[in-house]
Formats: sequence, structure tokens, C-alpha cells
Amino acid sequence: MNDKRFAKRNNFITSSEIREILKVTQQPEIISFAGGLPAPELFPIEEIKKACIEVLNTNGEAALQYSTTEGYIPLRIAICKRMANLQITTSLDNILMISGSQQALDLMGKVFIDEGDTIICENPTYLAAINAFKTYMPSFKGVSMDEEGMIMEELEKVLQNTPNAKFIYTIPDFQNPTGRTMALERRKKIVELANKYDVFILEDNPYGEIRFSGEKLPPVKHFDTEGRVIYLSTFSKIFAPGLRLGWMCADKPIMEKLVPLKQSADLHTDVFSQMITSKYLEMFDIEEHIEKIREIYRHRRQLMVDSMDKYFPKNIKHTLPDGGLFLWVMLPEGIDCERIFDKAIKNNVAFVPGTPFFPNRDHNNQFRLNYSNMPDNRIVEGIKRLGEVLKSELEK
Amino acid sequence: MNDKRFAKRNNFITSSEIREILKVTQQPEIISFAGGLPAPELFPIEEIKKACIEVLNTNGEAALQYSTTEGYIPLRIAICKRMANLQITTSLDNILMISGSQQALDLMGKVFIDEGDTIICENPTYLAAINAFKTYMPSFKGVSMDEEGMIMEELEKVLQNTPNAKFIYTIPDFQNPTGRTMALERRKKIVELANKYDVFILEDNPYGEIRFSGEKLPPVKHFDTEGRVIYLSTFSKIFAPGLRLGWMCADKPIMEKLVPLKQSADLHTDVFSQMITSKYLEMFDIEEHIEKIREIYRHRRQLMVDSMDKYFPKNIKHTLPDGGLFLWVMLPEGIDCERIFDKAIKNNVAFVPGTPFFPNRDHNNQFRLNYSNMPDNRIVEGIKRLGEVLKSELEK
Repeated sequence: MNDKRFAKRNNFITSSEIREILKVTQQPEIISFAGGLPAPELFPIEEIKKACIEVLNTNGEAALQYSTTEGYIPLRIAICKRMANLQITTSLDNILMISGSQQALDLMGKVFIDEGDTIICENPTYLAAINAFKTYMPSFKGVSMDEEGMIMEELEKVLQNTPNAKFIYTIPDFQNPTGRTMALERRKKIVELANKYDVFILEDNPYGEIRFSGEKLPPVKHFDTEGRVIYLSTFSKIFAPGLRLGWMCADKPIMEKLVPLKQSADLHTDVFSQMITSKYLEMFDIEEHIEKIREIYRHRRQLMVDSMDKYFPKNIKHTLPDGGLFLWVMLPEGIDCERIFDKAIKNNVAFVPGTPFFPNRDHNNQFRLNYSNMPDNRIVEGIKRLGEVLKSELEK
Repeated sequence: MNDKRFAKRNNFITSSEIREILKVTQQPEIISFAGGLPAPELFPIEEIKKACIEVLNTNGEAALQYSTTEGYIPLRIAICKRMANLQITTSLDNILMISGSQQALDLMGKVFIDEGDTIICENPTYLAAINAFKTYMPSFKGVSMDEEGMIMEELEKVLQNTPNAKFIYTIPDFQNPTGRTMALERRKKIVELANKYDVFILEDNPYGEIRFSGEKLPPVKHFDTEGRVIYLSTFSKIFAPGLRLGWMCADKPIMEKLVPLKQSADLHTDVFSQMITSKYLEMFDIEEHIEKIREIYRHRRQLMVDSMDKYFPKNIKHTLPDGGLFLWVMLPEGIDCERIFDKAIKNNVAFVPGTPFFPNRDHNNQFRLNYSNMPDNRIVEGIKRLGEVLKSELEK
């Protein structure tokens, strides 16, 4: 890795640890709770076909030509309307279409991070965000969570001690990896703290609309008073991830930095996919479609939890998400999840070990399970297999 | 720009100079030779519709689901076959699908550039490459060109004096902005020099297949002996830029750096667009389609050149491209193209001033014209209007 022909940042890129894990888990005999895939049987294929035909019949040349960096205007208008339902008031000029919400993480690094700056995040947090930020060589400070999300007293202490903090990265709704949701009061508090300590907040909300129990909460962006919250979301979980369509919502001074960097990164996002999505929103009822997703995921989450209660040893804790795709398992201290992973693979079941979700790798007894991508019988059988492994390790 | 909340790199990003120019030129009364758009009337809309329907009928779930970072395998295999026609022997594992070839420029910055490193390029070179690289804060050394491309004696001198050079960026075929093509002997020589001075070469070849006169030359990559040439190309000029589909071809040690950084940047490229393109290549004859593009562009280039001969003052030089989308106009020394630009806009005709194509902005008497995106009568009328401006400036 010390090859001087390459940039220094390559030394910080974990050489695709998770890629290797996902490769192992793709063997057909393995029941894998490792990925983070939506249920493909719910993709509205016929409706998308109709939208494609309509776009190509009525607006084919524009759909296939170069377009603007900011994105397709009718889609951005539709997004503003949908965000109003989430109690975020915004306008066209504050929406930037991006190539999947992952791209926002890279753009945030570009706009904000100099080598040695600090990013504050939930501990644990989304693995691919850690990797995207690492490209720009920051340090990380992770803030502990409880069942109501990031602990605000700890966040304030971190802010006091971190003058070079650039932004707080948070996933308030059904967080990846834990499935936890930030409580209402903390959503207000985090904005207060950002104002007080002069930092930005990156609110990553890919799962917010997949709430299947509990009360709907306004996004952190709703409480933004000083244009400090950069909000990002995606069509990947409510529509189709293959189209790589996400958006950022930010105030003008941030947009002025984001747009030229987005342009340098890939000129603009696939405009055919933007127009298909826009046409779909016009022709069909996406709320009805999302309701179907919620029902299925609610059912699968419940089945997974019930199976865990049945097959797991009693001293294992787990979260109980009100939405999203993931839940989080916490083993007793001293049990190494990577060791459990190796045994699980031998028993033909897989998950993602939790350690890489902690930016400073300071816990290794936790792991992530995905429940959105699996039929009932595989959920039950997989959890049973995993229970066998856990029992053999914990009760020996 | 000295707002410390933002990363230092923002100070190096030219605040979208060209974006402002393109905005001005979009007024309907202006005949604009400023953009770089393919002719949209040639997009194979009906064929793409058939390919969409076929993909969604036979493979809809995969087309809409998350996919691999490297890209859709059947498309990468098809690309290998097409590259063999260009005398590049490669394999699947050396092809990375990217979100338009612009993304390659960002990825090259990520893989290679530390602050203060030097990038060597043609002088002038592709403006959006300069901007993409600038994100990573290098210096630039531009190598002068003649009608046979980059001058190799000057390149060698630059290499001798630049120990921190990381790569040579070149567009050998119908270069953007000049339309010039690198001669055969120089293609061999540039590889020799890269080997001798231990640098990489980034060969950007978006236009290579749009050759409408002269003899086809093998890409620089064909002469690569040590895996130093990273080749990149795109479907934007031969198929549809709206789909944002390009590819990189590189040896294994480079691919190992590129893939995790591509994954951090946007997980993977739109898989529906990849599958549509792959299906199109399977169902239809793209060679026949490209031949149509060549014919039209040959005709438009000739019409533009003939009109320039008729309407421009006699002391103005211009290139005579054998392919691609652009030609380059060289005014006498001391004539400022930005001043000409302002006058041209008043006369309802536009181009891109040449200065920003020189990374160190060391020439200001040149400008770029695009001929691919305009019907005959507009080409003639636009060049006539531009001729009036040039005459009034040069003959006063």
C-alpha cells in the first residue's frame, strides 16, 4: 500500500472488507441476512415499463441527451411536494439530483473535509458512509446511542472538545445498521447544538418512509433554523435502487459548493432514469406502492424477531425497529462477532459483523441482520441456524 | 471563498465559468456552437424502447435491484469485443463501468493525486477534466501541440523536470477542444516516455469511433507494454449521453484501487441503463448506427469549414478535424477571445472562449466551435454572424 505512485488516501481505504464478506455470502446454500437489498418482488416492473414507453414516445430526445447538473425539473418539483408531506418546506433550487444517495456522501466529503478534520457520527453508523468520508482523510468521533438514538449529552461533550468538527452525520429514522430512531426531543436538540457549536448536520434519510409501526416524526431538517441541515434521501428503498436516484436538499450557500463538484464528478445523473421516475410519479400512486412495502417489511421484521425469541439464547439483546430494513444484535461483552461469523458461514447462514460499522472499530460483539430481502421460510430457517451457532458459542 | 467551514479544495474550483457561458448561450435567439452535444435526431429512440421492454420483460428484477460495482457482465463482455476491433486486447476483469466517462476523471484524481502533485496534459485540454482534477489540488503542466498532437520533445523535457508527475492526460483522437489527432509515431513515443519516467497515461477516447476521414489509428493503449495506460471511453457519443454510461480499462493493480473508490462514490452505475445498452448491442447493429453519425458529422464539419472559408477574415487559422465534434479557431496574437465572445453574443452567435481550456490560462486568442448539434442553415447563418464580428474586430 505504500506505492508512491498512488495518492495517500488509498492507504485509508479499507480494502473492501465488506465486499469480501458479501462475496462469501452469495453462495447459494447460504441464507444471507448480510445484504441490504429491498424486496425485488415488489418492484413495479409493469408500471415502470409503461413509464419508459411514455417517456420515449413523448420526450425521447431529451431523455437521451445531456442534461443539467441540478437534475430534471419536474422530478425536483415532485420531490418538493413529497418533502412537504414530511414537514420540510423547500423549493426547486434547493434540490440536487444525485446518482444514488451514496453520491451525497462523496460530495459531502468534497465540500467539507480537509485532511485531519473531524466528522461526528452515531457509533455505530453506516459503513459505506465511513468509507466515502475516509477518501478525504478525516478523523471520526462516534457518539454512543441508546434506544432513542444519539445521546445528546455525549454529543455536546464531543462538540466542546472538537474544534475541527465539520459536520454531524446522522440517520435519524431506522438507522443503518441499528434500526434505531432518534426521539423527537433529540431532533430539536441536535439542531440547537449544531447552531451553538457552528457545525453542519448531514441528515441521511433513506428509510424514513418505510415506517411500519410507531408515530411518524418530522425530520431533523424540519427543525433547521440556520440552514445547517443538509438532507438527503433516495428512491432506492421506495422505488428501485438499480436506477441510482437520490437527492440532496440544502440551502443556497451549500448548493453553490455542491453543484460544481457534482458536475466535476459525473456531469449529471442519468436523465432517462430521472424522467422514468418522474413519469411514474405522475401516472401511478407511489403512496399505495410504499404501503405494500411497509406491510411486507413489517411482517418480515416480526417474523425475524419472533424467530429470534424462539431460537436465540436468552442473554442476547436486539433492537426492535419501527421501520427500515435492518435490526441489530448485541452479544454479551467478550464475544467476538467475527468468530461467530466464521461459524455461521459453516452453518450456511450469514450476517454482517458489526465491527466495521464503528468508525474507530471500538466494539466487536454486535452484528447486523437484514429482513427485507427474504421469504418467510428462509427467515425462520436462517434464524434457527444462527441460533444454533450462538447457543454453541454462548452456552459452552 | 475563505469560509473555513468548507474544505480548502473549494478555493480551486472555478465557480462554474463555463456554466455561466452555457446559460447565456441557451437563449433561443442565439445560434450556439458552444455546447458539446451529439445530434439528438440520431438517437435510436425506437430501438431503445424495444430494448427497454425486452429487459423489463425478461430480467426486470435484476434491472431494478442493486448490482455490482464493476458493472453488468454481458455489457463488459460486449465492450471487450468492441475494444478488440480497436486493437486493444483486454478481458472482463479489466473493465469498470462508470457513470459517464466524466466519472473516470474524478476517480483518477482520487486514485492518483495528492495535493501538489503534477498532472501533465495537452495545452489546451478538456475543460471538465481540468476541473475534475482540480478537486484534488494538483498543479498542471501543459504540453504544446501541433497538428500531430502533443509535441513529444516538449513532453520529455516536462517529464525530466517534473519528478512529482503522476500521469499524462491525453485525448489522442479528435481532441476536445482542438479536434487534433495524435500521430502514430507519437502514440508509440508517449508510451516509451511513460515507461522511462515512471508515470501513468490516462487515454481519454470518447470520439475515436467518430472518424469520418483519414486513416484509423490504434489507441495509445494498444502500445502499452507495462500496464501504464488507463483507457477510458463512453457510450455518450455513439449511443446516448443521457444514460451516463462510460467505462475504464486498466490493469489489475489500478483496478484494485479504482473499484473501492467507485463503490464509495456511488455504489455502482445505473444497472437498468447498462442492461438497456447491452440489450441494444445484442438486438441491433451499432456499427450501422455509428456510420450514420459519421456521415452527418462529416457533412456538418465540412459545411462549417466551407462557411468559415467564405465568411471569416483570411488571417484566422483553424484546425481540420478528421472526426469528433469540435474544431478550434486561432485568432492572431493579441486578440482576446473573451472580448470576441461578448460581441458575438450581441450578434446572437456563441462559442466557448478558449482560455479555460488552458490549465494555466496562458493563451486567450483561441476558441472552440461545435458542429455536431446544428442543422445546416443554422451552421451557415451562425458562421456568417461570427464572421461579421471577427471582421469588425480584426479589420478595424
